Amino acid sequence: MTKDPLVVFTPSGKRGRFPVGTPVLTAARQLGVDLDSVCGGRGICSKCQITPSYGDFPKHGVHVAQDALSEWNKVEERYDQKRGLKPGRRLGCQATVQRDVVIDVPAESQVHRQVVRKAATARVIEMDPATRIFYVEVEEPDMHEPTGDLERLARALRAQWDIPEITAEFSLLGQLQPILRKGDWKITVALHKSSAEATPRLIAAWPGLHEAGIYGLAIDLGSTTIAAHLTNLDTGEVVASSGIMNPQIRFGEDLMSRVSYAMMNPGGDAEMTRAVREAIDTLAVEIAKEAGIAPSLILETVFVCNPVMHHLLLGIDPVELGQAPFALATSNSLTLTARDLDLASLPASAQVYVLPCIAGHVGADAAAVALSEEPGKSEDLVLVVDVGTNAEILLGDKTRVLACSSPTGPAFEGAQISSGQRAAPGAIEAIRIDPETKEPRFRVIGCDKWSNEEGFWEETAATGITGICGSGIIEAVAELRTAGLLDPSGLIGGPAQTGTDRCFPEGRTHSYLIHDATAEGGPRITVTQGDIRAIQLAKSALYAGARLLMDTRGVDKVDRVVLAGAFGAHISPRHAMVLGMIPDVPLDKVTSAGNAAGTGARIALCNLAARREIERVVREITKVETAIEPKFQEHFVNANAIPHATDAFPELHKIVTLPQVSFNTGGEDGGGRRRRRRG
Amino acid sequence: MTKDPLVVFTPSGKRGRFPVGTPVLTAARQLGVDLDSVCGGRGICSKCQITPSYGDFPKHGVHVAQDALSEWNKVEERYDQKRGLKPGRRLGCQATVQRDVVIDVPAESQVHRQVVRKAATARVIEMDPATRIFYVEVEEPDMHEPTGDLERLARALRAQWDIPEITAEFSLLGQLQPILRKGDWKITVALHKSSAEATPRLIAAWPGLHEAGIYGLAIDLGSTTIAAHLTNLDTGEVVASSGIMNPQIRFGEDLMSRVSYAMMNPGGDAEMTRAVREAIDTLAVEIAKEAGIAPSLILETVFVCNPVMHHLLLGIDPVELGQAPFALATSNSLTLTARDLDLASLPASAQVYVLPCIAGHVGADAAAVALSEEPGKSEDLVLVVDVGTNAEILLGDKTRVLACSSPTGPAFEGAQISSGQRAAPGAIEAIRIDPETKEPRFRVIGCDKWSNEEGFWEETAATGITGICGSGIIEAVAELRTAGLLDPSGLIGGPAQTGTDRCFPEGRTHSYLIHDATAEGGPRITVTQGDIRAIQLAKSALYAGARLLMDTRGVDKVDRVVLAGAFGAHISPRHAMVLGMIPDVPLDKVTSAGNAAGTGARIALCNLAARREIERVVREITKVETAIEPKFQEHFVNANAIPHATDAFPELHKIVTLPQVSFNTGGEDGGGRRRRRRG
Repeated sequence: MTKDPLVVFTPSGKRGRFPVGTPVLTAARQLGVDLDSVCGGRGICSKCQITPSYGDFPKHGVHVAQDALSEWNKVEERYDQKRGLKPGRRLGCQATVQRDVVIDVPAESQVHRQVVRKAATARVIEMDPATRIFYVEVEEPDMHEPTGDLERLARALRAQWDIPEITAEFSLLGQLQPILRKGDWKITVALHKSSAEATPRLIAAWPGLHEAGIYGLAIDLGSTTIAAHLTNLDTGEVVASSGIMNPQIRFGEDLMSRVSYAMMNPGGDAEMTRAVREAIDTLAVEIAKEAGIAPSLILETVFVCNPVMHHLLLGIDPVELGQAPFALATSNSLTLTARDLDLASLPASAQVYVLPCIAGHVGADAAAVALSEEPGKSEDLVLVVDVGTNAEILLGDKTRVLACSSPTGPAFEGAQISSGQRAAPGAIEAIRIDPETKEPRFRVIGCDKWSNEEGFWEETAATGITGICGSGIIEAVAELRTAGLLDPSGLIGGPAQTGTDRCFPEGRTHSYLIHDATAEGGPRITVTQGDIRAIQLAKSALYAGARLLMDTRGVDKVDRVVLAGAFGAHISPRHAMVLGMIPDVPLDKVTSAGNAAGTGARIALCNLAARREIERVVREITKVETAIEPKFQEHFVNANAIPHATDAFPELHKIVTLPQVSFNTGGEDGGGRRRRRRG
Repeated sequence: MTKDPLVVFTPSGKRGRFPVGTPVLTAARQLGVDLDSVCGGRGICSKCQITPSYGDFPKHGVHVAQDALSEWNKVEERYDQKRGLKPGRRLGCQATVQRDVVIDVPAESQVHRQVVRKAATARVIEMDPATRIFYVEVEEPDMHEPTGDLERLARALRAQWDIPEITAEFSLLGQLQPILRKGDWKITVALHKSSAEATPRLIAAWPGLHEAGIYGLAIDLGSTTIAAHLTNLDTGEVVASSGIMNPQIRFGEDLMSRVSYAMMNPGGDAEMTRAVREAIDTLAVEIAKEAGIAPSLILETVFVCNPVMHHLLLGIDPVELGQAPFALATSNSLTLTARDLDLASLPASAQVYVLPCIAGHVGADAAAVALSEEPGKSEDLVLVVDVGTNAEILLGDKTRVLACSSPTGPAFEGAQISSGQRAAPGAIEAIRIDPETKEPRFRVIGCDKWSNEEGFWEETAATGITGICGSGIIEAVAELRTAGLLDPSGLIGGPAQTGTDRCFPEGRTHSYLIHDATAEGGPRITVTQGDIRAIQLAKSALYAGARLLMDTRGVDKVDRVVLAGAFGAHISPRHAMVLGMIPDVPLDKVTSAGNAAGTGARIALCNLAARREIERVVREITKVETAIEPKFQEHFVNANAIPHATDAFPELHKIVTLPQVSFNTGGEDGGGRRRRRRG
């Protein structure tokens, strides 16, 4: 008796014998090989493309002859003419097994393919979306055997896709009949599962084979900005990214002022809820337009946000979050619909997943950072700092993770800074001050050159120099300190003390002039004493939060630091450390994770299992409340000074020159006198 | 060793031994005795009232001493002073077992108590509501162990009520925090289960112990009228009943004209959906006002309706129901929320259950009739006819049930009748015509006397005689026939033929004058030839539907007939049979079920298991489509005549005198000549 042909799939290595004539897709399904298909093997969706390999495969013990698969058939011919198949590719539902064969499933034909982020850290996301599409052919109604169209669709899904039962979003009920008739009883449906075990829910439908893709939005809803990534739910590709200001800013710059607004104004919470939902709705329309897709294709949205934004998004009065014991209305994750949130530009049936909150001050954004950076899987002790209007701080390793948040205020984002602005073309994002001449040079967003390089002024003529963004102000304060223009208490010296007219009197204190374009009708960009104080408050809060976690964990140093946040990628680790934003670690142990909360949102968007994972992780995190901890206040006060490098951090010394100055005493350190130390 | 005391519960007979000091409620729970409690044994809700019995109980082998239960305690004392306890009653959570005891659980302390309808047929409804309330005491938030308020509520329900987990309606999330704080962490919650196995869903909450009850609406959504029963979900008592006209009448009197309106007018379906939802909303407010309760206490609504109303209620274009194959968008039952249906006067979280449809022409109203009248449990062959604008007809016994619907039009409800009106005070509801004098006497709604009885005119002076309602027109046509004023084809004779001036010429035909109040400025109430034709069409449709089911079942007679429908209770079986509305059966085999669809809605409202039961029954019913069946047309045409009694129905002969007349031929039967036959 001749054995059936052997079929080996790569890269999985799964193998089995199948009778001659078995379609490759059928073989793959029986072996549990991850081979995609939307049309269920009808040769119209092309998702099941595979590549047969020929020749000797000693590893698999197989020789593959040229006629190992059936001949190219008419369906493949037609598909190739119409859409084009890559050379060597076959349609898995058409090609049948004839002899022993090795079949490669290319990444784009895998449902659970891995998507590598373009950003610096190579975080891999495995595709396992909650929403998938299925093509089915539905029986026509028969008045002698009356059943509803929905029930016949369910029967077709059972027969053709082995999906035992479905439920339907209410808003779909009215759409189903015209769609079925328009597609002549052929239909593509999108089914959403809230968990691996959940009954799939019908959330969208299109006549015939739907080829325009389905999309999801990962939204990082911050106090100041709302950032969104539009993601193809099939490929995992980010097709557009966009952000807008949070319009709630008009009710209060920081979270606590918004909570106060809700407390002082009856209906104020509803007003803020309406504002933020409208902004999200606008953002969805804009980002869809940018990507050239219809907003109706956005079938899922994942939100990460701090607890106050969480409550305001959901229409819950945040008043309890403004006072001890900071009780959340609900801390668990939520699965909702776009209709629940009045997001009118999305389909009413579009699904919304909101990550769980960790505590009353530590929100779903921190949970998202934990999902992205995985401190709980770290071998060494890592401090993850997500810098925003509120800083989310995680400290941990595989034994235990702690979390807190710290009210840094919006200074790090350029708000409440005299020449501050959001990160946009024309904003100063980096600055260096020469320790000898005290003259500044800088770089602005939209131009790669420094201001002292040739061509800078020509290239920035269009935008002008408009202000300083978050990373710029951090560098400016640190550079003022290293250039000896700022004493350890944070006081800017006068021209007499510093020897430069760039330090000029303004009221009872001094400011430092970075750039003056008033002659050409432009702005005058300075760092004022008030700016320094705002940054000192912000960085003290951040540092105190980190220290509180270290105390709780019983350590006085960490192995590495990850800077995250919307502008975390742009912060210079050296300047952050000079400023005292973060605990001292070797410079090469400070990395940037970019917008980790946004990445966490993207992971939750693309991977259903990740939702269950973060829900589990959140329950296990040790929550530390900064607001009522006396130690936090103590650390906060102690962190006010802008430190200098010590011998404990020789590496830092190699890079920065840290003059010891003090202006506010008449004593020996005053009067522009400098002491230098080098490591 | 002394045995623990024996506790015997009646009426269940459940028994067990419990240590001295065990609260009666605890013993009941451990034995699975159906004893209600909302407060969980805290002595505040009084739902667990029981009555100890004293003396000898040979049946149970027990002697109960006067000190079998603990002494009356302070909690009971306080409750009795405040609210009053019936003599002999104790609170089951306070009284503890001391010696052998027999304890009676009165009906009102049982969760699953039985409620007997007040109406003629004693249909018993067992209470097993989908929504129940629970009182719990929730832990206060602790910022060192941060959890959401909802999660702490869930934990309390787990600990205090053994409810492993809950989900929450989204609209509740924003209400929870103020309610918990107002009740000082004591709260009553309403939990809804969509099936016995489903995870309970939080749908309402009140601070402290909620004592105002919870309510449900059973709504019979008809083409012409919308009828609602407001029911206490705890006791099953109907606290108010009310009805309003279906405002969709302005878009078309019958179903097909509404479907046409939707087809001819873009957005017409949405317009009709809005109209009917607004009317339901208004009705809910009115009925709550009538009962003196807040609409916010209405937590469940059950709908029964025909398929077109079903689709229009749900916001589904009914166009497919207007043409073969009459495909429903969905036929299964639905569980929704008030928010889904824009019923703004109810809580957004209020649950809505819509009964399943049987087929494209046989709706959830027919399913409700099947639930109420249970033809599938009948030993003999029963025909159930629900008379309305569309008649729902069921035929069956325990072996098999068949169903169809028949388009009778609104004539039976007094619409499209020259002097027709809805059933309201002043409407003629019964009429008798003297076979000798041809003079009428009648009764109007709001007065028990006949018009020839003393005091009639004084008692009806306030309302006047305003028109004829459905039951009145049926009797009028039948009486005209039995008085010899109408020939078998339905033609009214002239004065010369009939010998009475009450038959007067009007256009080319004759009308019969019932009452003329024009002298006093009142109406002139007549039966016109057009009225006769309208009733003939309606009754032919009804009869043809019944015959078609009988053909399909292979029988030519039925054992009994049940007349249901909003005005089914008011139809005289004798007149219905003279008219030929229903197949001939002995008169004592015709019973009235009142509003069976409404009763079915009430059963589904009060009993969760009944929902699963009707869903099962509906799947097993044989659906017969009248619209495309040639036999239906044949029966319809044959049923046009108004028959006379034959010797096959001697019983009928005993009651009615049936003159044989014919006016429309110039031959020997014409000219007012009469032949009489008596059985």
